Amino acid sequence: MEYIKDPFEIEKKSFEIITQELGEKTFPEKEGKIIKRVIHTTADFQYADITKISGDAISSSHDALRQGCKIYTDTKMAMSGINKRTLKALNSEIYCLVDDPQVVKEAKERGLTRSMVAMEKAVADKDTKIFVIGNAPTALFQLCQYIDEKRIHPHLVVGVPVGFVGAKESKEALLERDVPYITTVGRKGGSTVAAAIINALLYMMN
Amino acid sequence: MEYIKDPFEIEKKSFEIITQELGEKTFPEKEGKIIKRVIHTTADFQYADITKISGDAISSSHDALRQGCKIYTDTKMAMSGINKRTLKALNSEIYCLVDDPQVVKEAKERGLTRSMVAMEKAVADKDTKIFVIGNAPTALFQLCQYIDEKRIHPHLVVGVPVGFVGAKESKEALLERDVPYITTVGRKGGSTVAAAIINALLYMMN
Repeated sequence: MEYIKDPFEIEKKSFEIITQELGEKTFPEKEGKIIKRVIHTTADFQYADITKISGDAISSSHDALRQGCKIYTDTKMAMSGINKRTLKALNSEIYCLVDDPQVVKEAKERGLTRSMVAMEKAVADKDTKIFVIGNAPTALFQLCQYIDEKRIHPHLVVGVPVGFVGAKESKEALLERDVPYITTVGRKGGSTVAAAIINALLYMMN
Repeated sequence: MEYIKDPFEIEKKSFEIITQELGEKTFPEKEGKIIKRVIHTTADFQYADITKISGDAISSSHDALRQGCKIYTDTKMAMSGINKRTLKALNSEIYCLVDDPQVVKEAKERGLTRSMVAMEKAVADKDTKIFVIGNAPTALFQLCQYIDEKRIHPHLVVGVPVGFVGAKESKEALLERDVPYITTVGRKGGSTVAAAIINALLYMMN
């Protein structure tokens, strides 16, 4: 079997194919890098239409990362897909609390999702400037409420929950808040999309 | 903001919506559980058409899991999305070698992807009976070659690489092998799809 084996060659060729198939659908340079990386990770061109990036999202998140910050995510899969070496070089880090024993216990007692209880704790940590919600609509709703209550004003919210119950609505709630955001309207999204967005933001800082 | 907060209620409602929207598109019970969980994790109904499950895939993988086995995956994201508690209860485990220092070193020296070198090592471990390729077409091509060489006869290959260079072709190669498989024809797939397939297989054993 003959096939391309060099990973750099594979990625380069992939982005060429994506650009070509997008055809007349073009984007500003930095936004394009995010959208193309999402398509690269999903092979789903619908993301060209549903990915929404607020005007201040890239500059605001880059400011936070340049100063060094914590990124909170509601999903271990997103965390494991994000380039930790690049993050560390920026003196930044990512964490997730949904498996934290205290969070698991409280969620059960209060009849809430673990993601919601974990979000409560993340918002209380003032070094957390970027929030990455790839899984739980409940976590994104919760974060929107904290923004309304002025308990937090994030440098960026990546709000891309996937699914059939609440995902779409939670992203609509995010779009109504005055906060830098990257989201995918409708049902689609998920942890690979979340990781691709953060990685794209990191790679364009090099 | 009013929304459903109970995670079990959310999942139940989600599967009801999926079943309803699939309409006349029905599947045998066990296959349906896999396909619906993939749709649940992607919000993409195209998976109803592109997910292919060989006739022996479910029974063969359940045999291996009941006896206790190792599952090898080429992606840390898939590993982190798979229910480890359920696996452990079955006396089974999952591992990934792409970050193994020896693998990283060899891949650089030999000009191969880390996934390929890691696959070489996984195939040499005779307790590894299930292979989950969610990322690298090169790893799936490599595995097909080892099957041809009769170095391994897996109980199941979940072959769902995503992307634009080699993914489609690597899945076509898998379909041509006489081995229990679950795959998604074409470009789509990825680590969330891989994890959803394994989790569906585990949950139906309860």
